[in-house]
Formats: sequence, C-alpha cells, structure tokens
Amino acid sequence: MVHMKKKAVCLVSGGVDSSVSAYFANDKNFSIYALTIEYGQQHKKEILSAKNIASALEVNDHIILNIDFSKFGGSSLTDSRINIESNRNLNKIGKNIPSTYVPARNTVFLSIALAYAESIDAGDIFIGVTSSDYSGYPDCRPEYIKAFQKMANLATKKGTEGNKIKINTPLINKSKDEIINLGLKLNVPFEKTWSCYKGGKKACGRCDSCQLRLNGFKKVKVKDPIEYEYIPKWYKF
Amino acid sequence: MVHMKKKAVCLVSGGVDSSVSAYFANDKNFSIYALTIEYGQQHKKEILSAKNIASALEVNDHIILNIDFSKFGGSSLTDSRINIESNRNLNKIGKNIPSTYVPARNTVFLSIALAYAESIDAGDIFIGVTSSDYSGYPDCRPEYIKAFQKMANLATKKGTEGNKIKINTPLINKSKDEIINLGLKLNVPFEKTWSCYKGGKKACGRCDSCQLRLNGFKKVKVKDPIEYEYIPKWYKF
Repeated sequence: MVHMKKKAVCLVSGGVDSSVSAYFANDKNFSIYALTIEYGQQHKKEILSAKNIASALEVNDHIILNIDFSKFGGSSLTDSRINIESNRNLNKIGKNIPSTYVPARNTVFLSIALAYAESIDAGDIFIGVTSSDYSGYPDCRPEYIKAFQKMANLATKKGTEGNKIKINTPLINKSKDEIINLGLKLNVPFEKTWSCYKGGKKACGRCDSCQLRLNGFKKVKVKDPIEYEYIPKWYKF
Repeated sequence: MVHMKKKAVCLVSGGVDSSVSAYFANDKNFSIYALTIEYGQQHKKEILSAKNIASALEVNDHIILNIDFSKFGGSSLTDSRINIESNRNLNKIGKNIPSTYVPARNTVFLSIALAYAESIDAGDIFIGVTSSDYSGYPDCRPEYIKAFQKMANLATKKGTEGNKIKINTPLINKSKDEIINLGLKLNVPFEKTWSCYKGGKKACGRCDSCQLRLNGFKKVKVKDPIEYEYIPKWYKF
C-alpha cells in the first residue's frame, strides 16, 4: 500500500527563515508546494535564491506570483524614495517598526498561500515567521497566526469541513541563532540563501537583515557561507 | 475648521454588489479609495466597468492590482478548460459551490484591501459580499467577516492601536432585489455595471450571475438598463 504524503504549501522567500521552515516541513515528510511572492522588491536576488532553495528541496511545484506592492508605497523595500536603515546598533533592531515593513505583508502572503492550498487540497501552510527577532512587526506574533488560522477555516471549503487548515510556524519562538542551528541540522544549503535588503552582488553587511544574520551565525560559531561587501567588527572568523 | 472625511478602501469589481457597496460608503460620507483586483479573469469587461464606477463616484484614487489566480487553476473564471454553468434553474443557484468559485478569493481581496488601507492610514474597508444569494461561498458569511476583522486588527499597526480596522459589509444580509433597491435610492449608475461571467459584447443572460441580476431587477419591477444577448422567459418588461 502506498502511503500518500500530506501536502503542504511552503512560503519560500529565499531567506534564512523561510528556507529553514521549508526544510522543516520536508523533514516532517510533507509533500512540498513552494510559493514565492514577488512583491515589487528593489532587486531580484531573493527570487533567484527562492528558486535555488525550491530546486534543492526537489519540491512538487513552485509557483512564483507577482503582486505589485509598490502601488501602495509606504515601505523602503518597494519604494525607492525611502532609505533602508543601515549600520544600526544590533540592540536597536526589532524595537520599532522599521522602514522595511511592507503593509499587511504576512496577511497577503498567507492569503495567497491559502488560495494555493485550497486549489491543490492541501491542509497545511508553512511560514517562517519569528516573533523574537522582529518584534516590530505585528503580523509575526502567535496570536495573529492563531487568528489567521481561525479565519482560514471559516473561509474555505476544506476548512468548513472541520478546521482542517493549519498554519505552521515552526520558527515562531526561535531566535536567529536557534533557527540557523536547526537549519544546520536539517542540511539547509545556506550558501543558496539571501537575506540582504539591498540588491548588490555581495550582501551589504550593514542593513538590519545582514546584521541579524551575521549575528546569528556568530552565535552558533559557524561561518556564514555567503560573501559580504562589508563585515561588522564584532563578527570575526 | 475643516472636518476631515474618514478614509475607506472600497473593493470595486464593476458588478452590482460592489458598486452599491461603494455608493453606500460614499453616502456615509467616507472619502473613497477604490481597489480593483484583476485576477486573470477571462475577460476585461469587468475592469472597464470598475473604472467607470470609480470615475462616476469621483474617488480619491483607484488602484487596479493584478494577481494571476490562473496559476492555481481550479475555477471556471480563471481556467478556460472548466465550463461556466448556464441556463440553470434559479432554485439551484446558491445551493452548492459553483465552478466559478475562486479559491480563497475574498480572503485575498480583503488582505490586499488591508495592505492598501494600512498604507493610506484608512480604518474602514467596504466589500459587497452577501450571504443570501451565494450561500455556496464560505467566505461570504458574517462569521467569516468577523474572523477576518479580528485577524486584521492583530495584523497591522493601526489595528494594534485599538481595534481600529473595520470590515464593512452593508449588503451581507440583503437579497439581490434589496441590493438593487438600495442602489436605485443611492443613484448607482447600473448601466455602467457588468455582472456576466462571460466576456461578450452584451451580457449572456444565461450564466448564474446574469440570471440572479435579471431576477433581482424583475422583483423590484425596474428594467435592467444593460443589454442582453438572451432574455430568460420569466423576465418580461
């Protein structure tokens, strides 16, 4: 008898968190359907990384969907007139809502994932949100995820058949170093991931995202395999 | 002293319900920001109608955002291989989930509306859902809208400042004829609206949407101002 794997839609952005989240789903024996939202980013490097991660995971399918968030403005990631914070003290990161916040981003991402899940009859969605490092984003908190799941079960055919939609957030209580540690155990190819908010050939090493990533690798005492244009003084290998 | 109008994001599809909903918001003295989602429809007639309605309403802004739902398949509205039901008995319509169901559509639409609302600091969203005519769609029920609103208030900056996001559904308990009656009172230019699921020069008169519309106009004893290719026998003027 063939045992059918359960299907899961995994949001894959090409960054560390979503890659570890997708590898976690794979390790739990889900059949993976990757979903990447292209949302008017200032660079395409993340999309390439997402493709490489999906390919390394040998996913069943990978849908890349474009949503032009820049029509709304309001975020430095989609509006080139707003500066991206850089060289900030690590203690300052995560204390307020940064310029890189994209309005209602996780809600839009999870909604599209829900549409994808419904169309392939999948009951599980994986998203690599974490409430620890990004306390400035309201849509990364457990109570938000719980409310989304409740709504999703009222929204869909599958959900109304008995709360069958589950929003999985395996990283929600983990810090960046704990996420990297988990990724190392799951053999996540970190050299294929991309975290920098800027679109250079090498990661900038100065934006919040680069700094949080480097700090995570520093804490687990493993050298980050990607190349940087600038290395903060506190990161030594 | 200038009294500032409250801002509202109104989902406008070009059909009867969303047009009446937007005119209702306008009547309640909101400053209107129209949002139309182009979702890989088989025809562009709806988008043109949405533009005409937004223009007639003299909205502050009208954003048309493309999301290619056809990548997911599963609906006759986005997948040309699936037939759209036609000539169905009126009693059969709304009893089950029709082929025109787009996976998680209202969730995706409301999420994008939430992103738009957050970017312009609007606290109100209007959507023309109705639970009466389309009992087959789980995402048209009041308990679903309530759950979405709760989630939205946990998802956003504005929401977390005190449940300030409201999802307005002025038509939720109205039948099609009650909606048309309300629209007539609000001077909705029904001649600019489009309901047909097909993309012909004239409305087909046979699909579920045409039949529900015609039946609504019949009940209020007003002639539908748009042209039809075919008129069902029960509709006489």
